[in-house]
Amino acid sequence: MANAKGFTLWFTGLSGAGKSTLADEISRRLHERGIGHEVLDGDVVRTNLSKGLGFSREDRDTNIRRIGFVAELLTRSEIPVITAAISPYRAVREEVRSRIGTHRFIEVYVAAGLDELVRRDVKGLYAKALRGEIANFTGVSDPYEAPESPQIKIDTEVQNVVESADRVWDYLVNHGFITVEEPATV
Amino acid sequence: MANAKGFTLWFTGLSGAGKSTLADEISRRLHERGIGHEVLDGDVVRTNLSKGLGFSREDRDTNIRRIGFVAELLTRSEIPVITAAISPYRAVREEVRSRIGTHRFIEVYVAAGLDELVRRDVKGLYAKALRGEIANFTGVSDPYEAPESPQIKIDTEVQNVVESADRVWDYLVNHGFITVEEPATV
Repeated sequence: MANAKGFTLWFTGLSGAGKSTLADEISRRLHERGIGHEVLDGDVVRTNLSKGLGFSREDRDTNIRRIGFVAELLTRSEIPVITAAISPYRAVREEVRSRIGTHRFIEVYVAAGLDELVRRDVKGLYAKALRGEIANFTGVSDPYEAPESPQIKIDTEVQNVVESADRVWDYLVNHGFITVEEPATV
Repeated sequence: MANAKGFTLWFTGLSGAGKSTLADEISRRLHERGIGHEVLDGDVVRTNLSKGLGFSREDRDTNIRRIGFVAELLTRSEIPVITAAISPYRAVREEVRSRIGTHRFIEVYVAAGLDELVRRDVKGLYAKALRGEIANFTGVSDPYEAPESPQIKIDTEVQNVVESADRVWDYLVNHGFITVEEPATV
């Protein structure tokens, strides 16, 4: 048996740092325990709420505010929400935090150095960005403002997915967002 | 005691027909019974999800799709949703219906004749539209495609707010969307 109260698990970090992978792993664990929730992935949101927006600061902020609005609706209805958008600007993250409520907003900084991201470059985007073929690419040609005091910081250069997900999961359990009753044998 | 399962109560109709009034009355009744829910009012959504969109058919459809996306998320998490946007075009309403699921989408046509709306004209918008001062005004200079087989039709020229809300409420109860256990004396 498991239960959850409403919260927003807000992953932020550079492209390729591991936000979606981690979001998917947490989603899998919630699902496994029968805990209903929603994942607001950057791409899904851009398709459904933000088609037409570009990557200027203003457009990125608008996109983040929309994710924040939907996360707020779900969170206050006690539905856990996981977001996984780069969300590079600190000010709008703080704006979303205060709308959702500080006690329900869990900022998770998914960090990895640029060298490592360029080395991984799963989608080949960094190579293109470094060649100047993609404008406004966060971390290369656009700023990323790292969280100053995130609730959780994950360094995906040294922690693998299971270790990272364990950190996040422990936070949720220890802070009472999730109540899990494990079988007596565990 | 009262309970609800997820549904979307989708009010559609011309400006001034009474969508918001009726939405507010249903919201009040749900609140009174402790049933959590969300109201996605046209104006709230335009501010939070659709700033920058205009009133062309394409922009209106985009706005409605966004409302539909959010309604879908909430509905599948078992949160009742009430929407109150004009939503003039049939095709996109049907698109939203099929995304949310026919069995959870309740279309409520809030009808009133143009003569009556021009007579009421609470916000003075019809007068302006008729003078040509507002472009793309639904019912005057823009089409409104009435539902062909709405789950509920309310004629606000002959039914007052309480009667109208009773109709909607009875539908919700009779179709098992809301379970109300009245005190034994009733």
